[in-house]
Amino acid sequence: MKYPTSIHNLIECFKKLPGIGEKTAERLALSILKQDSQIVELFSKSLIDVNTKIKRCTVCNNLTEDEVCDICKSSNRDSNVLCIVEDPKNVILFEKIGSYKGLYHVLDGLISPLDGIGPEEIKIGNLIERIEKNNINEVIIAVKPSIEGETTSLYISRMLKGLPVKVTKLAHGIPLGIDMEYVDVMTLEMALQDRKDISN
Amino acid sequence: MKYPTSIHNLIECFKKLPGIGEKTAERLALSILKQDSQIVELFSKSLIDVNTKIKRCTVCNNLTEDEVCDICKSSNRDSNVLCIVEDPKNVILFEKIGSYKGLYHVLDGLISPLDGIGPEEIKIGNLIERIEKNNINEVIIAVKPSIEGETTSLYISRMLKGLPVKVTKLAHGIPLGIDMEYVDVMTLEMALQDRKDISN
Repeated sequence: MKYPTSIHNLIECFKKLPGIGEKTAERLALSILKQDSQIVELFSKSLIDVNTKIKRCTVCNNLTEDEVCDICKSSNRDSNVLCIVEDPKNVILFEKIGSYKGLYHVLDGLISPLDGIGPEEIKIGNLIERIEKNNINEVIIAVKPSIEGETTSLYISRMLKGLPVKVTKLAHGIPLGIDMEYVDVMTLEMALQDRKDISN
Repeated sequence: MKYPTSIHNLIECFKKLPGIGEKTAERLALSILKQDSQIVELFSKSLIDVNTKIKRCTVCNNLTEDEVCDICKSSNRDSNVLCIVEDPKNVILFEKIGSYKGLYHVLDGLISPLDGIGPEEIKIGNLIERIEKNNINEVIIAVKPSIEGETTSLYISRMLKGLPVKVTKLAHGIPLGIDMEYVDVMTLEMALQDRKDISN
């Protein structure tokens, strides 16, 4: 005995999503019974749309429904600055700041020799061409501070050596709103090394 | 700046589900990009199917795609025993035991005067008729041991007073596989009261 076919199938589909186990999938699938038909129809349609319409921007590799994404298309952006991020989620994160007006380059991964991911496996191929063609004068490497992030960062900075472009990376230090006792030693060491002079 | 429309819509839909916040919705929606098309199509179809095909069994109020659910239709069930449960999820739970062969009655809620849910708001109306018509000789009340559960249990047992039917409820006690120190005092008291004689 199990649920009627449609519910059973829906549970199985929810289970395919990351972090969703048997119990949660069951709860989510049953919650659909209580949703407005309109929401469920939009849900169903959006799934298909995401699956069929979403492409990668041919310029920066960000998610888009067109050939080129809204950011690359926009005339309000500073086309001389390029921010290199790991995935499309990070683009949204930077856009939330609001003050960054440059363009992006989405790598779609980080170099990780241990996992067999080399420079060829990430979207790094057209980077030099893009920098040269568009008169980019600063490349901000904004990947996470992990072994993979540092490896990727090092690889890119070496690759761009010789080009008339400034290569920067995000500052490390103590995040805002945290209790000092929860700061790990490595971060504290970084924050100490990069300390700022605030004497007038 | 936000995600392309289809991704944005999908995030909003995921956010409508219970326990899914902004971040999780974003993660789940983006994970759809990595799923097989077949899975996504089944997902999309199942949502619509659950929304349009699922009805309540006209006999026991369980979930079904037909007029009458598989359990009520089956000739292998003991039609003299009725297990009263709060919702369709509990039916699946009992079916997992495998040894229960009776029928069910799904209340779809519990009496809760504080929340304004009286006996009229739960599916209790046809219970007496069902018991009389089908020669049911035992009703097992299998609702959770909360104030609402006890209220509902009391209401049903009073309602059935005078009918030639045995009314039982599930045993309370210490669950299996738990460390004694984690058993709450109320449960311990119940377990002590209902202690079993094991002297041969």
